Order: sequence, then C-alpha cells, then structure tokens
Amino acid sequence: MHANHTDVAPIEPTEQERTVMRDAIDRALKAATQSGKAGIAATVMRDGQIVATGENEVQLQSDPTKHAEMVAITRAAAALDQTDLSGCTIISTLQPCEMCLAAIRFAGISRIVFAARQASVPPKYFAFPHLKIEDFQNGEFEFVGGVDEARVLHLYENGDE
Amino acid sequence: MHANHTDVAPIEPTEQERTVMRDAIDRALKAATQSGKAGIAATVMRDGQIVATGENEVQLQSDPTKHAEMVAITRAAAALDQTDLSGCTIISTLQPCEMCLAAIRFAGISRIVFAARQASVPPKYFAFPHLKIEDFQNGEFEFVGGVDEARVLHLYENGDE
Repeated sequence: MHANHTDVAPIEPTEQERTVMRDAIDRALKAATQSGKAGIAATVMRDGQIVATGENEVQLQSDPTKHAEMVAITRAAAALDQTDLSGCTIISTLQPCEMCLAAIRFAGISRIVFAARQASVPPKYFAFPHLKIEDFQNGEFEFVGGVDEARVLHLYENGDE
Repeated sequence: MHANHTDVAPIEPTEQERTVMRDAIDRALKAATQSGKAGIAATVMRDGQIVATGENEVQLQSDPTKHAEMVAITRAAAALDQTDLSGCTIISTLQPCEMCLAAIRFAGISRIVFAARQASVPPKYFAFPHLKIEDFQNGEFEFVGGVDEARVLHLYENGDE
C-alpha cells in the first residue's frame, strides 16, 4: 500500500445494494454450472434501478476482455446510449481486477460494492497482484468488499475462470 | 515509482515492429479524421505476422471499454480461437492505459511497443494517472515507448478521445 494515496472513508452497502448483490450471487452460482460461463456476475445500477447485468464470458466468447464487469458496463452504456455512467454503482461478486477497475473509472462510476475480496481469493484473478485496490483509489472512488462473501468464496477457491 | 518493483532491461523495437508501428500510426492518423473513431490504433502480432488490428471505437460503439488495444485483443483472440495470446507482441500508438495493460497481461502478452508515452500526453488517457507503467511491471512484461512518438503527439495534445 502506498503511503501517499488519499484515503476515502469506508462505506456500507445500502439495503438495495445488498438485495442486488443477492441476485448477482444467485446468477454467479447458476453461471458456474453453465458451459462457458465462469461463476462471476456483475450489475450496474443507478437510482436504485438495475441498468444492466453481465456474467464472465471469457470462455464463452473466447475473449480475454469479457469479464463480468466489462460485459455489464458495455450493456449499461448501450442501454443508456452514452459512455458516461456517472452516478451509477457497480456490484460484483468478485473484487474488480485492474482491467475492470480502470473501465469502471473511465465510465465515471465511483461506487463499487463487491463480495469476494482480493485477499480471500487466488492471485490469478488479478493481472498485477502486487497492487491492491487502495493503490488505485487515490481518493477518486469509494468501495466496500466482503459483502455476502461467504456465499461465493467456494466459487473462487481454485482460481478457475 | 515503487522502490520494490523488479526492473526489466530496456528493449529496442525490431525492424518489423517499427514497420508495424508505421502502419498503426497511418491508421491512427486516418481514424482521427473519421466520425466516431479516435486517433488511436493498435496491432497484435506474432512471429512477425499481424494477427489483428483495432482502432479506438469508444464513441463509435458507445462503449467505454472499446480502446484500440481492447478491440485488437478481442479480434486476435477470435482469429486464433483462444484467449491465450502468449508469444504475441502488441503495438500501440499510445501507451496502454491500465485497462488495456491488464487485458494485455490476462491474454499472456508480455511485449509492448508504443509511440506516445504517458509523460507526453494529458492525464485523461489514464484512469489512475498517479500510477506509472513501472508500477505495474513487476518483472512480468517488457516494453518500449516513444517509438515514432513525434508523428502522433499532435493527436493527443488536447486529450480528446
């Protein structure tokens, strides 16, 4: 962890975000049983409404860029017909990797709620495991991890994707 | 820059890589004149052959994830019908942002050649401008920037995308 990053006060998920997380986890558990889909799911929401959802489709589409958050962001931008997703929150069953985190910020999303935390899963889910989410934060977004984590950790214990 | 990252010896672009860069810059210059395409172009090559190319299509597709490198990686994985692009090199007219850098590493690409360097362009091309490419490196990939940089800097001086 850098000494020079700006800390942001810890946040708590809202009741609505907890509800959306439960749904995302249900989708992740289902996806894990389906051919070509990994058990990772994400949702983009705004003003308490779901804008778009996505699951990891890396194997399904044979495309290393198709993480659940990326699929959800692509669909959310299409649904709103704009690349600016400011004011949206992203919910994910797994802490967003560096690719997704950068996409989240390029889209203007500044609130992130996730279940499984980096420290709880194998390093292979991250491209640069020596960096932590705090290294990226720099005061520009808020996040809370570990929400309903116990329901999903078995999905990620082997590092399959 | 972290004190604890592992340095990798500087590399030089091969003649073939310089040739591919010239073509990528030509495409970037052309794309900059086309509606919906930003002047950023990338190429994935392997064994001296071009596997796939891409230009930035963020506005064209209304999708914040469609950076030139992402488009090229998606097409390369489709062309090779596999998500593993180990042994490939990526050429880009602009230093890959954190999203693209993570996608590059997830795809197994470990050699990166780019023209315009982060220090030469506005910070908006990066999601986390307080981090530098050396912060990500950790001994896991090699890169060279500034190749033919003078031909492209005018494309990026205003930070348009």
